Amino acid sequence: MKAEIISIGNELLIGQVVNTNASYIAEELSKSGIETTRITVISDNTEEIIKSLKEADRRANIIIITGGLGPTKDDITRESLCKFFNTKLVENSEVLKDISCFFKNKGLELTDINKRQALVPEKSKALFNKNGTSPGFWFEKNGKLFVSLPGVPFELKPMITEHLLPYLKKINNKHIIHQTILTHGIGESFLADKISDWEKALPPEIKLAYLPSPGIVRLRLSGIGSNYHILKKNIENNVIKLKEIIPEYIFGENKDTMQEVVGKLLKKNSATVSVAESCTGGMISNLLTGVPGASNYFHGSIIAYDNNIKTKLLNVDKELIEKHGAVSREIAESMALNIKKITLTNYGLATTGIAGPTGGSNDKPVGLVWVALATDEKIISKKFLFGNNRERNMIISSLAALNMLRLYLKTKL
Amino acid sequence: MKAEIISIGNELLIGQVVNTNASYIAEELSKSGIETTRITVISDNTEEIIKSLKEADRRANIIIITGGLGPTKDDITRESLCKFFNTKLVENSEVLKDISCFFKNKGLELTDINKRQALVPEKSKALFNKNGTSPGFWFEKNGKLFVSLPGVPFELKPMITEHLLPYLKKINNKHIIHQTILTHGIGESFLADKISDWEKALPPEIKLAYLPSPGIVRLRLSGIGSNYHILKKNIENNVIKLKEIIPEYIFGENKDTMQEVVGKLLKKNSATVSVAESCTGGMISNLLTGVPGASNYFHGSIIAYDNNIKTKLLNVDKELIEKHGAVSREIAESMALNIKKITLTNYGLATTGIAGPTGGSNDKPVGLVWVALATDEKIISKKFLFGNNRERNMIISSLAALNMLRLYLKTKL
Repeated sequence: MKAEIISIGNELLIGQVVNTNASYIAEELSKSGIETTRITVISDNTEEIIKSLKEADRRANIIIITGGLGPTKDDITRESLCKFFNTKLVENSEVLKDISCFFKNKGLELTDINKRQALVPEKSKALFNKNGTSPGFWFEKNGKLFVSLPGVPFELKPMITEHLLPYLKKINNKHIIHQTILTHGIGESFLADKISDWEKALPPEIKLAYLPSPGIVRLRLSGIGSNYHILKKNIENNVIKLKEIIPEYIFGENKDTMQEVVGKLLKKNSATVSVAESCTGGMISNLLTGVPGASNYFHGSIIAYDNNIKTKLLNVDKELIEKHGAVSREIAESMALNIKKITLTNYGLATTGIAGPTGGSNDKPVGLVWVALATDEKIISKKFLFGNNRERNMIISSLAALNMLRLYLKTKL
Repeated sequence: MKAEIISIGNELLIGQVVNTNASYIAEELSKSGIETTRITVISDNTEEIIKSLKEADRRANIIIITGGLGPTKDDITRESLCKFFNTKLVENSEVLKDISCFFKNKGLELTDINKRQALVPEKSKALFNKNGTSPGFWFEKNGKLFVSLPGVPFELKPMITEHLLPYLKKINNKHIIHQTILTHGIGESFLADKISDWEKALPPEIKLAYLPSPGIVRLRLSGIGSNYHILKKNIENNVIKLKEIIPEYIFGENKDTMQEVVGKLLKKNSATVSVAESCTGGMISNLLTGVPGASNYFHGSIIAYDNNIKTKLLNVDKELIEKHGAVSREIAESMALNIKKITLTNYGLATTGIAGPTGGSNDKPVGLVWVALATDEKIISKKFLFGNNRERNMIISSLAALNMLRLYLKTKL
C-alpha cells in the first residue's frame, strides 16, 4: 500500500508558504502503516494537475491532493479533477446546507462567492469541512483512492482524522513503526561516534536516521514488518541499549518537547517555576505556556530587557551590574534567585546574554550566554558560547535553560 | 529557464521534518526570476534518486538536490549522484583542509567519520560549506545545472546565496515580480468580496492569490514580463488602488512581520513599550524581541500567569479581580496602565483571556480575550472571541495586541 501526496499551489512554488500539510499527512499515513513514497508540489495549472494525477495513478494506491479548493478565482483544483475523472460540477444540497449553517453560526451573511463552494464533482463523494466552506472530494477509480482536500491546515487536519484515517485502518495490515529519541547538548557527528557500535549492530529491518535542528538531534529508528508485536519489541530493545550508552543527552521521545518534559517533571514534583529572561526575551515563558495546563506549575516571568527593569523589578544590585556587566555569572544567578523570591516559586530560571547579530565585544562576543537556576538548596549556573545567529541563539539558550531545570528535577524524583 | 527541486530524506516522507529548504530555495529562485515548476520529495533510496534525477532532467534546466550528504550511514545521495553521472568518489584535499579547519576552530578533534566527508564525485566541483562539514556538489551536463546541497537549513542557506545566486543572476534575463500585501482582522472570503471589482480589473499578466494563516491573510500579486520596469510599475499601480479600498486592514508588505512594523513605528516615534501578558504567556515579548535591535524600544514585560503575580507585581487591585474576574475589560486595562507606569514606558500593552483548550464557562468561553493599550492620553481596550485552538488563540491574540499598538502609533506620525 503506497501513498503519494500532490500539493497544489503557486504559493508553495515561490516559497511563500511552507508545505506543512504534506508533512502532517505523511505522518498520519505513516502512523497508519502506509508508506508515503513521494510528495509532489505543482502549480495551480490544470495541465500540471492532470499530468501529476496520471503519474501518481501509475505508482501509488492512495493519492491525496491538497490545495486549490478555495472560493477565489486562483483555485482551479475542482475543475481539474472534473477533467481527470471525466465528470462535471453539480450543486450539492447537503454541502449548501453545511455552508449556510457555517455562516449563520458566525453571524455572517452568505455571499454568492461562498455559494459556489457547494458545486461538487458528480462522480465524487463530498467530505464535510467543519472549519471552513470548501468541502473535500473522495473519488474511487480502479481500486485506487483519490482524496482532494482544502489547503488551509486548520481545515485539512480534522478532515484527515475524521474521514481518511478510519478508512485506512480498515484496509491496511502492514506495520511500520517509528521511534524517535530526542537528544540535547551534543552535535550530530559526536553523537554518531559515541553510538557507532550500537548502530552497526542494528538488525537490517531497523533503519536509523539523524535529524538535527537547533539545540536538538533526533535519532529516528524505523522498522517495517508483518508482526506488530515482534517489531515493536525489537525496536524497544534497541532503544533500551541506546539509553544505556548516552543517558545524559536524552531528554525525550517522539513528539515530546523540552517544555512538555519539564512541565511533566514539575507536576510530578508538585513544584512551581518562574523565569527572569533577558536575552531569550520571553521565549522560555512562551515555550512553557504553549503547553495546555501550564498554569499548574508556571506562575509568571519578568522579561528584563532593559537594565532598569533588572534593577527595579528584579531587584538586581546596580553596583553588581556595573562591576561584572549585565552578561555575567553574577547577574544570571542574581536574576534566578530574585525571580524565585519575588514570585514565591520553587524554582527560578534566568538567562542573560548577547543574542546578536550585534552588541558583542572581544571580551563578551555575540553568542555568549549565562543560564542560571535557583532552587531551595543552591544556585547552579553555566556559561555557553553559541554562534552569530540571533534566532538560533535564542532557541538554544531557551532549551539549555529548560534542560538545566530538567536535569535538576530528575534528581529530585 | 525552469527549475526543479528534489528533496531527499525519509524524515520528510514520514512527516517528521517540514520541507522548509524547498520553500527557501523556491523563494530565492523566484527572486532571481527563475520559476520553480516542481518540488519532488523522495526517500533515501538510490533507485528513487536516480529516477527522479532523470525525470527532472527531461523537464527542467536547473535541478537543485537537497539532503542525504551527512556523515552518517543513512546518507546516500553522494553515491547515487556518482551512479547518475557515471563517476566515482575521490578525496579532495581542499575539502579535507576545510573540514580540518572547521573542527580546529571549534577546538574539536577530527574523527574518521568526518574525514569521509572529503570524498567528492570526480566530475563535480565541490562547494564550500562554512557552517558544516558536508560540501555541496556542482555538476554541469548538456547545458543543464545540477547542484547537490546538504539538508541542514543553517548549512544550505549560505551555500545558496554564495554559490548559486550569483551564477543565476549572470545567466537569466526574464522577470518575475511578486508583491504581497499583508492584512489582519478580516477573513478570506470577506476580503474577496470587498476587493472583487479590483480583482476582476487586474490585467492578464498579473495573477492574484489569497494566502490565509492564523490572524493574517496575505494577498500575493505575481507578474511576469520581459521589461522589468513596466512590469514593476504595473504591479505598483494596482497595489496603490488596493490600498485605497482596504486601508484599515493592511499592516505591511512582502516579508514584513507585525512585530517589525510595530518596532519601526516605535522607533520613528522615539517611543518605548512594555507588555503585561496573561493568556499570551510571553508570545508578544518573544515576537518583539525576535527583531534585532528591539532593545531600542522594548523595555520589558511581566508575564502574569498566576493571579498573585497580577496583584503583587502588576499592582492590579485584588478586589477588581474578584468583582470582574481576571478575564475582563477592567483587568486588561489595569494591566496595561500599570505595566506602563512600573516600567516608565510610553506604551503599555496587555492581554488577558482563556487560551484553552479548557478553562472556559458559559459566561466566559474558551477563546474570549481582552486586549488593552495604555498611552499617555487614554486607555483603549477591545474584546475578541476566537476559537478553541490554544496555539491559534495565542497567535491571533498577540497579533491583535500588536495591531492595536500599530494603529495608534500611525495616528501619532
